[in-house]
Amino acid sequence: MKFNQFGRLTPDLTNQISELESIHFLPRNWNQQAPADLLAYLFSRCFPEVHENSEVQDREHRILVDAHTSLADLLAGQPTSIRRTEFYTAALQLLGFVVADDFPDLDSLGAMAKWQLPTIEADPIKGTDLVAAFYLLLNTRGKNGQTFLDILTSRGFFNQFFGAGEQPHFVIFNGKSQAVFDTRRIIREVVYVESDLDTDEDGQRDLLQTTIFRPRETEHGLAVPVLYTANPYFRGTNDMAPVSYNVNAGLTPKIPNQTTYEDIAYHAPQQTPPSARQASGTAKEASELPVDPGIYSLNDYFLARGFATVYAGGIGTRGSDGIRTTGGPEETASTIAIIEWLHGDRVAYTNRTDNVAIKAWWSTGNVAMTGKSYLGTLAIAAATTGVAGLKTVVSEAAISSWYDYYRENGLVVAPVDCQGEDTDVLALDTFSRRKDAADFARIKPIYDKMMADLKKGQDRDTGNYNTFWDARNYRNQADRIKIDFISVHGLEDWNVKPRNVERLWAKLRDLPINKKLFLHQGKHIYMNNMQSIDFTDMMNLWFCYELLDVQNDAPTILPNVTVQDNAKPETWHRYTDWSAPTTPRTQYFFTGHDLQAAPPRQEEIVAFRDDGVPLFLAGDQNDHTWEQLLMSQQPSVYEHTRRLFTTAPFTKDRYIDGVMTVTIQVAVNKDAGQISCMAVDYGKERRLQENPAILQAGGQLLGYQWATDDVKEFKLAKLPNECQQIAKGHMNLQNRHTPWQNEPLAPDQFVTLHFALQPTAYHLLAGHRLGLLVYATDMGMTKRPTTAATYQLDLNACRLEVPYRR
Amino acid sequence: MKFNQFGRLTPDLTNQISELESIHFLPRNWNQQAPADLLAYLFSRCFPEVHENSEVQDREHRILVDAHTSLADLLAGQPTSIRRTEFYTAALQLLGFVVADDFPDLDSLGAMAKWQLPTIEADPIKGTDLVAAFYLLLNTRGKNGQTFLDILTSRGFFNQFFGAGEQPHFVIFNGKSQAVFDTRRIIREVVYVESDLDTDEDGQRDLLQTTIFRPRETEHGLAVPVLYTANPYFRGTNDMAPVSYNVNAGLTPKIPNQTTYEDIAYHAPQQTPPSARQASGTAKEASELPVDPGIYSLNDYFLARGFATVYAGGIGTRGSDGIRTTGGPEETASTIAIIEWLHGDRVAYTNRTDNVAIKAWWSTGNVAMTGKSYLGTLAIAAATTGVAGLKTVVSEAAISSWYDYYRENGLVVAPVDCQGEDTDVLALDTFSRRKDAADFARIKPIYDKMMADLKKGQDRDTGNYNTFWDARNYRNQADRIKIDFISVHGLEDWNVKPRNVERLWAKLRDLPINKKLFLHQGKHIYMNNMQSIDFTDMMNLWFCYELLDVQNDAPTILPNVTVQDNAKPETWHRYTDWSAPTTPRTQYFFTGHDLQAAPPRQEEIVAFRDDGVPLFLAGDQNDHTWEQLLMSQQPSVYEHTRRLFTTAPFTKDRYIDGVMTVTIQVAVNKDAGQISCMAVDYGKERRLQENPAILQAGGQLLGYQWATDDVKEFKLAKLPNECQQIAKGHMNLQNRHTPWQNEPLAPDQFVTLHFALQPTAYHLLAGHRLGLLVYATDMGMTKRPTTAATYQLDLNACRLEVPYRR
Repeated sequence: MKFNQFGRLTPDLTNQISELESIHFLPRNWNQQAPADLLAYLFSRCFPEVHENSEVQDREHRILVDAHTSLADLLAGQPTSIRRTEFYTAALQLLGFVVADDFPDLDSLGAMAKWQLPTIEADPIKGTDLVAAFYLLLNTRGKNGQTFLDILTSRGFFNQFFGAGEQPHFVIFNGKSQAVFDTRRIIREVVYVESDLDTDEDGQRDLLQTTIFRPRETEHGLAVPVLYTANPYFRGTNDMAPVSYNVNAGLTPKIPNQTTYEDIAYHAPQQTPPSARQASGTAKEASELPVDPGIYSLNDYFLARGFATVYAGGIGTRGSDGIRTTGGPEETASTIAIIEWLHGDRVAYTNRTDNVAIKAWWSTGNVAMTGKSYLGTLAIAAATTGVAGLKTVVSEAAISSWYDYYRENGLVVAPVDCQGEDTDVLALDTFSRRKDAADFARIKPIYDKMMADLKKGQDRDTGNYNTFWDARNYRNQADRIKIDFISVHGLEDWNVKPRNVERLWAKLRDLPINKKLFLHQGKHIYMNNMQSIDFTDMMNLWFCYELLDVQNDAPTILPNVTVQDNAKPETWHRYTDWSAPTTPRTQYFFTGHDLQAAPPRQEEIVAFRDDGVPLFLAGDQNDHTWEQLLMSQQPSVYEHTRRLFTTAPFTKDRYIDGVMTVTIQVAVNKDAGQISCMAVDYGKERRLQENPAILQAGGQLLGYQWATDDVKEFKLAKLPNECQQIAKGHMNLQNRHTPWQNEPLAPDQFVTLHFALQPTAYHLLAGHRLGLLVYATDMGMTKRPTTAATYQLDLNACRLEVPYRR
Repeated sequence: MKFNQFGRLTPDLTNQISELESIHFLPRNWNQQAPADLLAYLFSRCFPEVHENSEVQDREHRILVDAHTSLADLLAGQPTSIRRTEFYTAALQLLGFVVADDFPDLDSLGAMAKWQLPTIEADPIKGTDLVAAFYLLLNTRGKNGQTFLDILTSRGFFNQFFGAGEQPHFVIFNGKSQAVFDTRRIIREVVYVESDLDTDEDGQRDLLQTTIFRPRETEHGLAVPVLYTANPYFRGTNDMAPVSYNVNAGLTPKIPNQTTYEDIAYHAPQQTPPSARQASGTAKEASELPVDPGIYSLNDYFLARGFATVYAGGIGTRGSDGIRTTGGPEETASTIAIIEWLHGDRVAYTNRTDNVAIKAWWSTGNVAMTGKSYLGTLAIAAATTGVAGLKTVVSEAAISSWYDYYRENGLVVAPVDCQGEDTDVLALDTFSRRKDAADFARIKPIYDKMMADLKKGQDRDTGNYNTFWDARNYRNQADRIKIDFISVHGLEDWNVKPRNVERLWAKLRDLPINKKLFLHQGKHIYMNNMQSIDFTDMMNLWFCYELLDVQNDAPTILPNVTVQDNAKPETWHRYTDWSAPTTPRTQYFFTGHDLQAAPPRQEEIVAFRDDGVPLFLAGDQNDHTWEQLLMSQQPSVYEHTRRLFTTAPFTKDRYIDGVMTVTIQVAVNKDAGQISCMAVDYGKERRLQENPAILQAGGQLLGYQWATDDVKEFKLAKLPNECQQIAKGHMNLQNRHTPWQNEPLAPDQFVTLHFALQPTAYHLLAGHRLGLLVYATDMGMTKRPTTAATYQLDLNACRLEVPYRR
């Protein structure tokens, strides 16, 4: 176990005392109390689930302070101070650690140092040190990864604040909002925001169904900020099988052209929306109850802490008007319409027919967007509009350009486990209006048109970047981002590949905003419930700063770039930047089997035969078992379908930081071809498991009698394995200059490709070797030609460039 | 999809009308309404999430009744009747089915017949038929497996009943209790029940921490029955690794003896408990809040429906006194102490120190027990005491004799995936008092004594049945069961093996009680969230009958025995009995490779070599991959470690019903030995997957803004496989007569074993063959001798007997 903690403030003692008083942990008259009484009082505050002194003592009777003494025994002696080791022995038990399992030797200070938990230095602890020790303890992370104050919260500590007679208000402790709002009484409602769009072409502005969860305290004068998640999956999804594509097909030779970017750049058309509805009246309360629950535990955590959470599916989803456009500008407009309403700049109605207007009167107008994947993507989309009211986004595993999701360098390249998917397939998936049969029957023609438009625009035949994709490249408008921005991405995310975050980060780098980046070792997952890092606390600090104007210095406190180590469990590095243009690059040259620093001395042409597809299709392998065989240095049926080049073993640890690039001089005996490259870490090692293990099911407690999430952590596999994929990249031999221009290609003509692998932050251990696999068909991502081709590599002209962190 | 429904009542029209009125679905003046108004009104009741007529119409506008007409269009014509096909087309959409995916041809009646959903015959539907049609619809199962009324409940239908001014009361509809209680206001509390035990020998009666969840309405005069789950895991578990056993060891030869059952029979000692505490006062409200949530979604479902749920860990668990005895009589007494308090026959205190007594004044005294595994085991234990207040149990995947959990026929035989576990290991696991370090430090001597006592009593050296195990055989007291009883068990449960339920069922068969049995295709799982069967509804019927005295005829309505088919998905058979003694048995004789009806004509002795353990330990196989190799008819490294005998292909489907037995004449070249037999179904077939697939995450909605569970179903695997295990059994060659008597065994001496395989209910398809594997070491269950042995079988004397259902 290691508990990294980046979101804790260290205020001075005066502020600590005033914060402790504000949450009623410390009594107002504390410094008139006898020292022994104060000590006893402070411990008694740690058991909010009981009320009688005898009950508190019964609990203290179960906690050890040393091998022979319980906390109750110690306090019975009316001590005026407590030894540091005793305090922390008790503290660890309060934090949920189990003596027998976690620190059987009762070496609390040793355990806390090892687990990276903070302690105060005073010994014995008394007077104001005691107050400081409890302040620190409340902000120390327990075994479930949450602070002690959050643990106490889940056991009723803040119930005293629920429905208090006074004016409801936010309680800030250590710069973070606390769960003083009664989640059992949350108000749930649905409204319909009127957009400026008419994507279903019915002559009416598209209404957007919007689901709101807000504290009951808003009914009593509290205005709250909003966490808004634009979620096309919110009202359900469709089965995509009917429209998915067969990928067992060869590449189509493309007709050479001289297309330039200017030829295909997207320019937004001028459009005039239909006239707006006329309000027939106004209402303060909505009249519809939502049928779906919230979907992100981080949102639920903040709902208990006074942040309303809002979900909207957007155009084409069930309950809303419109059609889907899979990342098109219409979806961006649909996304920000909700913010405009929350900010008071747009009208919403209580239902779809009566035109009774309703305001977000309970909202401060300060909005943050959250969510992962398509949800985080729409957060990027919204941020690039500069919409008023949006104060920050926390965009996780998000697409910053849809071309980087479904295409690469002139090739159709699928997200992992999504072979055959494309923008039209995803549009069907999220077009949940289809679930309402009569609604769908009426708009079937416009649905058919949408599917045809997407199919044409995405141009699966060439895989080229075109106007359709340019309209779906949010990075084109990155300079319109005026708000503080957080990106989160998994370094093992082969669904939304890390290029999406890296190229966005490259745009954000020089913008005059605060920006933060978190790179974890997960695939396409959230990171708010990992034991080893206090992500939720950091977000609390951030949202309080951005939405509640709490002066907690969050932009300084949070690291710029936080990267989880792939080789050492529970280890998070703090950096000032990632994939910076100034990072030095090491060049490797190719010989028959090696990657080496010195240029090769003699010419060498090697070949491989791309004929694995029939074998793959006949077998019972999936993409992942194929990939293991391809990487393996043992003999395999796919051995001849790739060439492997490796470095000598590293003499010391190295950290790859950013984008590796390859130069490949290649010929194929056909008039079309594709090259794939994969960087691999070779070395027998116990590596992190693919998915985080569940440490405590339901152990992350989001409030009092409220939602929970599982506590998770990446653990080392029990057995070592031989290698691990680091990154890969793909290119069409006809797109060797740009993804929009087709170059000529003759059979057996050598051409030079220069392209990037997906970016990474990778810790290569001493003794390991870095390998590069060069092959053609990527079973899990590219099209799969069923007829064989022979590729030749001119090794003299091949290069690998690796950026190593200094 | 198939929706089996066994728990629906079919009251006469008068009762249907009065029930519909009681839930305010039908207005009191309904038969004075114009027919068109009534039709419109009834549909309008199907959208409780909205309130305005216009909002209802907007929803009706989204529902098709035929290819061109929405429900709103149809109703706009003020029809006085509705065509049957129109009604059911709308009904299916209301039930959550999606036209485009589920019945694109709009053939609603065909779909309902195929899915086994009920319809009424009238066409067109009008007048009282219309009322009957809506009554039936409310009791029809939707796509998430729940009735339409439950679906409406989750969308707010019963909110009108929450906190109503009148006296709170149960609402019964179709014989089942409805969710008219506001789960957002549930009362949670902890009390301490004083038992008669002093298992930790501190001179004080053991206090048992008890967690209660009860409707707020109990504060306003409502007395409620209780679902009580005795759950030793409730307050957490310990890591068992420190005390688990190494199983890679040979069998110890046992000294022959003449032990009889009388020699080892358990007789309860007379014990005098310490004197009881003297109450210092009384309280009406508890003073401690629980820190743990409920753990069984079925309980949560009933909590919304007015049944309090109560959890207690029992002796030795965190917050309670005492020690664990892993199924010992003390745990039975600890379990029923809670019922005695709930029934008013025992005292509880508000905390562990102040002796303030508190009654379960809110309880009707009617208690049912629920839970799976150890939890269900303690329900059996309680039922065999005849304790007052306990009205019924629903015991799932439960142990009826602990010998059948950890032992078999004189062998140590582990539950699947639990090699090395034993009663002392489980005692450590559940001894959660250990988590409170000071508490543990004080009772460490008694803990050590407990572990020593269990280790001695369980006698891992011989594996024999002895007094220790006899004290843990609840079937000895089965004739004390006076209450109606439900058993649920997975036919693929190799943790708690089906023998436990079969031998209990054999005891229950002739008792003058109502008893029901459910056998599903799962492993060690609950079955309350499967789409294909209405288990929750059946339990509602049952609990209302048993605990609320609702005269719903539940004992007649529910099938005696309900068995899920292993070959046909979503198919449940209803039988009057299972494994009945009268089931005819077919005898098979052995030849070299065959099982045949005719006795063999010539002598034949065959051998196998039991030398697979070193290979198993050296490889990276687990028990499950080993088992696949052992069963396979393809060459494998374990082929020579077993003999396989198979029948000819079946010419028609057969159903194995109960216990297969084998007679094996065997010699081993050692002075100790073990025989394992496994029956296998051979035939290339797409079989049910091992685990049910999640159809809708969180799709089972247990109330309004309340807990959820996933909707699951067993699906056929995408690919066929060659074979599937049916059942197995094991015997020590020295225990060929009883598990308590050791017989002599000389090397190469032929002895005759006769033993039962685990019971089953198995559908053998025509064209398949029944196989029997005979081998020695079972890697996943028996000890694993690391030195080789040779076993010989005298086939002339071997038999397999199979009970086939008539």
